[in-house]
Amino acid sequence: MSQGVFGVDIGGTQLRVALAGLDAKIIDRRQTLTRPELGADAGVETLAAMMRELVAAQGWELQDVGAIGVGAPGPTDDRRGILLTPPNLPHWRDVPLADMLVSATGIPAHLQNDANLAAYGEFRQGAGQGCKDLLYVTVSTGIGGGIIIDGELYSGSFVAGEVGHTVLIADGPQCPCGRHGCLEALASGTAIGRVARERLAAGEASSLAAEPDVDAAAVGRAAARGDHLALDILATAGRYLGLGLGGILNVLGPEILVLGGGAIQNGEALLGPMRQAIAVQAFPDVLAAVRVTTAALGQDSGIVGAVEWAVDHVQRPA
Amino acid sequence: MSQGVFGVDIGGTQLRVALAGLDAKIIDRRQTLTRPELGADAGVETLAAMMRELVAAQGWELQDVGAIGVGAPGPTDDRRGILLTPPNLPHWRDVPLADMLVSATGIPAHLQNDANLAAYGEFRQGAGQGCKDLLYVTVSTGIGGGIIIDGELYSGSFVAGEVGHTVLIADGPQCPCGRHGCLEALASGTAIGRVARERLAAGEASSLAAEPDVDAAAVGRAAARGDHLALDILATAGRYLGLGLGGILNVLGPEILVLGGGAIQNGEALLGPMRQAIAVQAFPDVLAAVRVTTAALGQDSGIVGAVEWAVDHVQRPA
Repeated sequence: MSQGVFGVDIGGTQLRVALAGLDAKIIDRRQTLTRPELGADAGVETLAAMMRELVAAQGWELQDVGAIGVGAPGPTDDRRGILLTPPNLPHWRDVPLADMLVSATGIPAHLQNDANLAAYGEFRQGAGQGCKDLLYVTVSTGIGGGIIIDGELYSGSFVAGEVGHTVLIADGPQCPCGRHGCLEALASGTAIGRVARERLAAGEASSLAAEPDVDAAAVGRAAARGDHLALDILATAGRYLGLGLGGILNVLGPEILVLGGGAIQNGEALLGPMRQAIAVQAFPDVLAAVRVTTAALGQDSGIVGAVEWAVDHVQRPA
Repeated sequence: MSQGVFGVDIGGTQLRVALAGLDAKIIDRRQTLTRPELGADAGVETLAAMMRELVAAQGWELQDVGAIGVGAPGPTDDRRGILLTPPNLPHWRDVPLADMLVSATGIPAHLQNDANLAAYGEFRQGAGQGCKDLLYVTVSTGIGGGIIIDGELYSGSFVAGEVGHTVLIADGPQCPCGRHGCLEALASGTAIGRVARERLAAGEASSLAAEPDVDAAAVGRAAARGDHLALDILATAGRYLGLGLGGILNVLGPEILVLGGGAIQNGEALLGPMRQAIAVQAFPDVLAAVRVTTAALGQDSGIVGAVEWAVDHVQRPA
């Protein structure tokens, strides 16, 4: 008889495991550095070791745990439980992660794109509680997203929610994905850093010129101290984000749009212009029906979603 | 005891009514000019007269009909059955169409955006039969759409499927909606006509110069006779359409994308470049999972959807 579940969040920097009860409340958790260069076998062994610690601390056995929910960077083949080509985990390509976790623990494991699980976490325990239709968008190195429709995680016929690779400027700047003018090429953390370096190189004055490494975090710090160039770069990225998301609201018409990810920590410098641009692009009726907010669970959206996903699979076996 | 339903399609040019059995098969139909300048009261009386004819021809009474499904140009307030500001029906603004039809006929009436019902028609009896998740896009004067998710018409918290007003070129050409760079501003019939007039005015050579009225239909005719400018304009519009829709496929991941509307009659001159651009923008896995095709019901997608919508409401009263 299952007493709980594991939620796992596999990031480029941290591996995180939470043990939760069947009520999806987290009991205890562990995290450690991913060290992606050691590969997936080592990563799975590290996860399994943290799981053994977590159950031991409760006086449980691994077989007391009914399911593992795993969030990992997309693209993922969720039906077969395979990580495909995660950009931040180059040594984890084409890894049958669900099967490897089952082998290491004896517990059924269910993989999902991490942005989908963050959407699900916000829906079940965060900003979207009580909603039926939710769009979650994470703005960090890249831009991803997840969709809840009628109370269910929606993943289309293969993947869905990849709002970062909608076109915002046809034939615009090249995106890390290789395409041109994607929303991610104009409003992600990577884009913010790139634009800052370009504008500095073009001779614009800024305190950023003294930074050894001009990335999105540096732009955020400069904006916080009132640097005009940094504020302008964040406002431009926020406006692009809002135009893109405003259009997507016209397609999805969700009740709530939840913003997460590191770039959101720039606060109103990014979010103010984003909200203004959403109001330009979204139809008035769509705008009136949607609440735009930030993730209530912060960094935990994903692992809470992984726990909820695991609980779903204990209660309704696949 | 209900024996059938009515499907109604309210267009800027034609008013159409179909009488169908509870199996959603059309038994008989009528259509007439909309004459929108006469206003909604006259329009509803015309519809009611066609309905009386249709039931009389079967030896039925109006009370033998269990529901009316009505498709009308968006934006519509479907929950309250109100036409809001239909651009092609300026004398029908803020019209409580569902209530007016109930008053005229005694039959419960259920309003939906016409693109949503066209999506539903293709899903139930057309190109999307057997699918779970479908995106329908109509390219005519404007660009609209409808979404089926998990076998149900999806309309979000107010409206959904309005793919024409996603951004394709931020700060690009003005859209008829007043915004800038919407997909509709670059790939609709209106955009095709506008670009043709601009390029003729700029001195480009084309047989279109001899046309009294250079609109999308004229461009289509010129392309059919091999006119290079017309072919280039359609290819450009098709490419933009494909970039926009390819990005939306990354968000929705449907099993099938169904194209409808008048512009589709331009065939491969538009659809070929559209397919190529979809393949550029959509993720390979998304592309592999989606079938891109044209409406199987042609002009009848909408009225078939209206009939199906009515049948749903007879069988499962709202």
